[in-house]
Amino acid sequence: MPDHSLVFPGQEYRRRITALQSEMARGGLDALLLTTPADVFYTTGFLTRFWESPARPWFVVVPVAGEPVAVIPAIGAELMGRCWIKDIRTWNAPDPVDDGVSLLADTLISLVPASGRIGIPMGLESHLRMPIADFQRLQDRISPRKIADGTNAVYRVREIKSDAEIAKIRATCAIADAAFARVPEFAHQGTPLSQVFRDFQVALLQEGADWVSYVAGGAGQGGYGDVISPADDCPLQAGDVLMLDTGAVRQGYFCDFDRNFAIGRVADEVRRAHASLHAATDVALADLRRGMLARDLHRILSEALVREGAVVGGGRLGHGLGLTLTEWPSVTPLDTTELREGMVLTLEPGVEIAPGRILVHEENIVLRANGPELLSRRAPVEMPEITG
Amino acid sequence: MPDHSLVFPGQEYRRRITALQSEMARGGLDALLLTTPADVFYTTGFLTRFWESPARPWFVVVPVAGEPVAVIPAIGAELMGRCWIKDIRTWNAPDPVDDGVSLLADTLISLVPASGRIGIPMGLESHLRMPIADFQRLQDRISPRKIADGTNAVYRVREIKSDAEIAKIRATCAIADAAFARVPEFAHQGTPLSQVFRDFQVALLQEGADWVSYVAGGAGQGGYGDVISPADDCPLQAGDVLMLDTGAVRQGYFCDFDRNFAIGRVADEVRRAHASLHAATDVALADLRRGMLARDLHRILSEALVREGAVVGGGRLGHGLGLTLTEWPSVTPLDTTELREGMVLTLEPGVEIAPGRILVHEENIVLRANGPELLSRRAPVEMPEITG
Repeated sequence: MPDHSLVFPGQEYRRRITALQSEMARGGLDALLLTTPADVFYTTGFLTRFWESPARPWFVVVPVAGEPVAVIPAIGAELMGRCWIKDIRTWNAPDPVDDGVSLLADTLISLVPASGRIGIPMGLESHLRMPIADFQRLQDRISPRKIADGTNAVYRVREIKSDAEIAKIRATCAIADAAFARVPEFAHQGTPLSQVFRDFQVALLQEGADWVSYVAGGAGQGGYGDVISPADDCPLQAGDVLMLDTGAVRQGYFCDFDRNFAIGRVADEVRRAHASLHAATDVALADLRRGMLARDLHRILSEALVREGAVVGGGRLGHGLGLTLTEWPSVTPLDTTELREGMVLTLEPGVEIAPGRILVHEENIVLRANGPELLSRRAPVEMPEITG
Repeated sequence: MPDHSLVFPGQEYRRRITALQSEMARGGLDALLLTTPADVFYTTGFLTRFWESPARPWFVVVPVAGEPVAVIPAIGAELMGRCWIKDIRTWNAPDPVDDGVSLLADTLISLVPASGRIGIPMGLESHLRMPIADFQRLQDRISPRKIADGTNAVYRVREIKSDAEIAKIRATCAIADAAFARVPEFAHQGTPLSQVFRDFQVALLQEGADWVSYVAGGAGQGGYGDVISPADDCPLQAGDVLMLDTGAVRQGYFCDFDRNFAIGRVADEVRRAHASLHAATDVALADLRRGMLARDLHRILSEALVREGAVVGGGRLGHGLGLTLTEWPSVTPLDTTELREGMVLTLEPGVEIAPGRILVHEENIVLRANGPELLSRRAPVEMPEITG
């Protein structure tokens, strides 16, 4: 019986578990121990905003063969019981004496031989969502079983999106497209930036977002100072370039792209910068192919920007996307992750217009057999000009 | 110069650092290493939604004497530079070869003697927001310096809110009060629950929330099944009790309380359950005193519910609140944390009306010298009845 909380039919989760088990076998792992919202959602369909509370750890164990097991606080039993997973073990959390450690250790011991290796994601862009003291207790309890690096097993599976996942991300992108189209309704000369941020979140919700996990942006003459600050109360001024960036969420899947708007007439250098970002994105849309590495995409974008006469911004020029606002890989000169068919990525070139004045531009794509396919609606070459 | 991004004047952060240093000295720690959004915001004023991206670790080191040091990705330098903290060291993250580990190790080595102990929060309700493999590398790099338990040093300081912090939480509570008052405008018989959730988030934003990190709830005849599920598309029906719960955020500070609404006339057992929750909360508001333990509050609430003839729900009956949706302590029979003046807490009694049918009720308070002071506007004894 389909249930809203499940997001996908059971076969989608079956496919994922099988893929994880195949990677585990390749990596010599007997099980994976997963703790983050994205990994738990990915393997079970358990979707809740309750992760916002740091009070309780949540665990999913995926053995190299057989069925996954959820080891979770009792408060989640009802919701997990509506997911496809059958083996659900609970404790009353938070428990200052034993916050699920014994239950988790017993589960691992029953599933993994004494000589076995239990993988956890421990590499770049990962973290372990449980108290470190409890992790140390767990290692003692499950000894001689060893904790090993499970980063590859998880990343190589999660980074390839199924058609069902791509459809979800596309739907979230469409919500952001619709909200961006409404920005001229509420962002005017004189409107405080904080009010623009609020109205943009309202628009995202009205267009169908379940919730809005991320809105950032900036506004300024000749570019903005950074792209991660909360909004201040300064009113938009004629000549400002306004940037809004969002990670809205629908059914657990994110979009992540931004748009720039001209408040009246902006300086020629800003228009030139926007044109160079747009052109560099066009080059990447034309030239990116599966089999390239993440650093190749960085090179394609930076070389295109340089050809346009722009100063390439620091930081990465794109990244993965899906169950979290950002996923690996990172489009940097150092990332050698292979870009494969089915990866969902952001193309996010940035330029420095002057010291401390930047402009960024972002699209969301899925990499297909013959190149990128846009998931966001392509930004216009010219920034929309908001008059009045 | 005051800056919106700073939230508080510099002296508030000075006071916090001094308090942390005092607890560090008491616990024999030479420094604290902090990694979570709340701990970084608490010590520096660095407020951003960029934490939504799991790509990069962020560090603040607070030595037992002297100035704190931020060791952060370069993308945060601009915003951190507007905070009160002066010593800011950056690297280009994410870096697959060395993602800040060397820079952090060098910082710790320069601040902590070789025989020293570096505290991290590692106890109940904590986690370390950095890759475990990098944490292991860090421990090797800083050896013979040892990582030690810094949970107490952080928790005993953060759990006592300053008047400035209490004012922030009160302001966020007022936003939720105003949004709850508008629920009868958009929650009607026939409205899908998912639409109610969206409209409630819109109301919170319109009433002044910077963003809405948490909305949950439920609706059903004779109670709801759980309190953490996302909304389904089922329309509200006559006789449903609707519950909405929110952790809205303003200037980095959360509220966390819920309200119940009757869609038309609800069953007498639901009205009785609501009255018992209201009465138990009144008892706690009258009897709670500083010096009691968290488990004493659990006893006060459960005994009052039993006197009302109700079946006490499982799980905790309240918790701390402030920089995250939930903070320690937990109002359970096991938590022996002393409740002290200046703590901000939720009173959250729950009852089971029938198997799988629950009702919950929540208020936010600050514990003063002579007992609790409400931060949320007291819920009415009778659930508001929404007709039509």
